[in-house]
Amino acid sequence: MSEDFRYELVASDPDTGARAGVLHTPHGAIETPVFMPVGTQATVKTLDQHDLEEARAQIILANAYHLYLRPGHQLIDRMGGLHSFMHWRGPILTDSGGFQVFSLGELNKISEEGVRFQSHLDGSYHLFTPESVMEIEHALGADIIMAFDECTPYPCERDYAAASMQMTLRWAERCLGRHRELSAERTHRPPQALFGIVQGSIYPDLRQYCAEALIDMDLPGYAIGGLAVGEPRKAMFEVVRGTAPLLPAQKPRYLMGVGLPHDLVEAVAAGIDMFDCVVPTRNARNGTAFTRTGRLRLKNARHAEDPSPLEAGCDCKTCTHYSRAYLRHLFQTNELLGLHLATFHNVFFFQQLMRDMRAAIIEGRFATWQAEFSALYRD
Amino acid sequence: MSEDFRYELVASDPDTGARAGVLHTPHGAIETPVFMPVGTQATVKTLDQHDLEEARAQIILANAYHLYLRPGHQLIDRMGGLHSFMHWRGPILTDSGGFQVFSLGELNKISEEGVRFQSHLDGSYHLFTPESVMEIEHALGADIIMAFDECTPYPCERDYAAASMQMTLRWAERCLGRHRELSAERTHRPPQALFGIVQGSIYPDLRQYCAEALIDMDLPGYAIGGLAVGEPRKAMFEVVRGTAPLLPAQKPRYLMGVGLPHDLVEAVAAGIDMFDCVVPTRNARNGTAFTRTGRLRLKNARHAEDPSPLEAGCDCKTCTHYSRAYLRHLFQTNELLGLHLATFHNVFFFQQLMRDMRAAIIEGRFATWQAEFSALYRD
Repeated sequence: MSEDFRYELVASDPDTGARAGVLHTPHGAIETPVFMPVGTQATVKTLDQHDLEEARAQIILANAYHLYLRPGHQLIDRMGGLHSFMHWRGPILTDSGGFQVFSLGELNKISEEGVRFQSHLDGSYHLFTPESVMEIEHALGADIIMAFDECTPYPCERDYAAASMQMTLRWAERCLGRHRELSAERTHRPPQALFGIVQGSIYPDLRQYCAEALIDMDLPGYAIGGLAVGEPRKAMFEVVRGTAPLLPAQKPRYLMGVGLPHDLVEAVAAGIDMFDCVVPTRNARNGTAFTRTGRLRLKNARHAEDPSPLEAGCDCKTCTHYSRAYLRHLFQTNELLGLHLATFHNVFFFQQLMRDMRAAIIEGRFATWQAEFSALYRD
Repeated sequence: MSEDFRYELVASDPDTGARAGVLHTPHGAIETPVFMPVGTQATVKTLDQHDLEEARAQIILANAYHLYLRPGHQLIDRMGGLHSFMHWRGPILTDSGGFQVFSLGELNKISEEGVRFQSHLDGSYHLFTPESVMEIEHALGADIIMAFDECTPYPCERDYAAASMQMTLRWAERCLGRHRELSAERTHRPPQALFGIVQGSIYPDLRQYCAEALIDMDLPGYAIGGLAVGEPRKAMFEVVRGTAPLLPAQKPRYLMGVGLPHDLVEAVAAGIDMFDCVVPTRNARNGTAFTRTGRLRLKNARHAEDPSPLEAGCDCKTCTHYSRAYLRHLFQTNELLGLHLATFHNVFFFQQLMRDMRAAIIEGRFATWQAEFSALYRD
C-alpha cells in the first residue's frame, strides 16, 4: 500500500474485535471506525458541503452508476473531478455500480464480459465492464474506488454464489489491471486506492476463498459486499463475524450498505472500520430521527407542543436551535426545511455514534460502552 | 408612534422620491429600504435561520392565515410566540390573511362582520373578522402586524372599490380597537405595531381618501395593498407614485407583494421603504436565479460545463463555492440541494440589491445608480 493510503491501527479492543485507526488519503485523514454519508448524485441530499463539515462527516460516498448516467463521468472529469465539481474538500469513495446495476437496472444481462443494463432513467442500454467501471471511477477521481463486482441477491443458490464469486474475482483482477494502467496515465490527478469486495453470499467457505484470493492481490482495503440485501440480520452477522477476522489487520475493512445504529455497533465489535448507508438521510426525509433510545417519528402528535430538542444533549444545529414542535410543524406542512434539519441531525448523530465508539475503543472500554448502548437503544 | 417602532429618516434622494431610513423594532433595527423574504408557514422555504442571517435578511414575513390553520396560532402562543417557535431572533411582520382568504379560500363570503372562508387544506369553514385577526396576530407576536383588509381583485368596478375601501377603513378602526385592548392585556410580550393598508384599486381619489383616513388614525406605518394582483405594471406604478407621497414622511411605507428587481428599484424611487414577495424564493425553486443582468434559467444546457458562479463577484455562499455546472446538475437530477442553493443566492441577491440602493440614496447618487441598474438589467 502506498503512503497515500496508509492505514494506521491505533487501538484494538481487548474484549471484542473492535479497532480504532486512521486511514490516510490524498484529501485528508479519516479516523475509523467511520460512517460515510451517501451522496449518490454528488450531493448528500439537503446538505451543502459546509453542512457536511459542520456535521463532522469525514468522507462521503458517491455512486459511479448515477454519475455515469447524469451528468456523465467525462463531464465531471472535464470539470476537474468530483471533489472540484461538488466542492467537497475531504475524501470521497465511489461505489462501482455493482449494486446499482442489479437493484436499479430494469433489465440486466450478466456475462463474463460485464453487465448490460437499462438505465432506470430512460431505458437506454449500457454496458459496464470491470475496465469501463475503472475508467468511470478514474474520471470521477474519488480517493477510494470500489472494484466492479456481482452483488448476488438473497437467497442465492450455492452453485450460483460460487460461480458468481469466481467471476467477481476475475473481475477484480481486470479492475486492478485497468486501474494500474489508468493510474500510470492520469498522473495529473491525486492517486486513487482500489478496494476489493468479498462476495460469496452466506456461505462461509466461499467468503473465505474470496477473501484469501483478494488478499493475494494486496489491495489497500477490503469490503464485505452482498449483505443487507434481504437476508436475516443473524445471517448477515454470521458472515461479518466470519469474514472480518480473515482480512488483514493492517488494512481497512468496509461493510457495504450497513446500516442502522445497532448494526454499526455490532459490526464495529466484529472488527469493521468503514460503513455507508442511506439510513440516516432517507429516514430523515421520511420524518424519522435517530436518538440514543431509538427512532423518533417526527409527525407523531405527541410532539406537537414539545419544546425539547430531538435529543437532549445533542450538539447539532437542529437540536441546539429547534424544538420537536417546530420540526413536527415543518413535516406536517411538507416544508423542505424539515427534511434538511432532520437530515442534519441524523448525519450528525451517526458521526457522533462513530466518534463515541472510537473513543471507547481507544480507552479500552468498548465492551462496556456497547452494553450501555444496547441497554438504551430500541430499534 | 412609540419608541419601540421609531422610524428614523436618514436620507432623501435629491432627484427622486427615494429615502433611506432605520426602523426600530423590539427585535432590532431594520435599515430601509428593505426586502422581507416570505416565510409563509414560519419558514423561508429551504433556509434555516442561520442561513437567513448569512443571507443578511433583516426581517421576515409570515402569514397569519397559514399559521392559524397549521399549527394554530394558539399553539404558537403557548410555544412562546413565533420568534421562539421558529427560532428567528430578528423582526417579523405578519400578513393579516386579507390576501390569502381571497386568493386561497375556495369559497369566501364577505360581509361587514368579516370573511367566511373555506380552508385550502381541508375545506373546513372559518370566519376571520378584524377582531379575530388581531387575536391571531397577537398570539403569533410579530413585531409588525397588518390590519385585516379586503384585497380587491383586478379589474374592479369603481363602485365596488369605493365600498370595499370604506369597509377596509371601518375594519382598520376595529383592528385598532382590538389591537389596543390586546396590547394592554398582553404585557408579557414585546409591543407590536399595527400597520394600516391603503386600498382603492386603481382609482387615485379612492387611494387618496383611504390614505388620509388611515393617516388620521396615526398608525406607526402604512402599506399600499391591492396591487400586484394582475393589473398592468404601468397601472401599478401610477398608484404607487400617486399614493406614496401622500403618506407621512416620518413613517415607513410598505408596498405589499412586490416584486421583481426592477419593480423594487422603481418603487424605491417612488418613496417605498418596505417590500415582500415570493419572487426570489419561488423562482429559485423553479430553477431561476436572479443576477444583475436579469434572470438565469439553471436548467439551460449552456450551463452544463460552465465553471463560473451564478454571478461573478457575488459574495453569497452559492456563488463562492458552487459552479453553474454543479447547480444545473442538481436541478437536472431533482436534488433538494439545488433548491436550497438557488434560494440562498436569490435571497442574498435581493438583500444586496436593497443595500446597494440604500448606499446610493445616502450618498446622493440614486438616480445615477438607477440608470446604471436599468441599463444592465433585462427582465
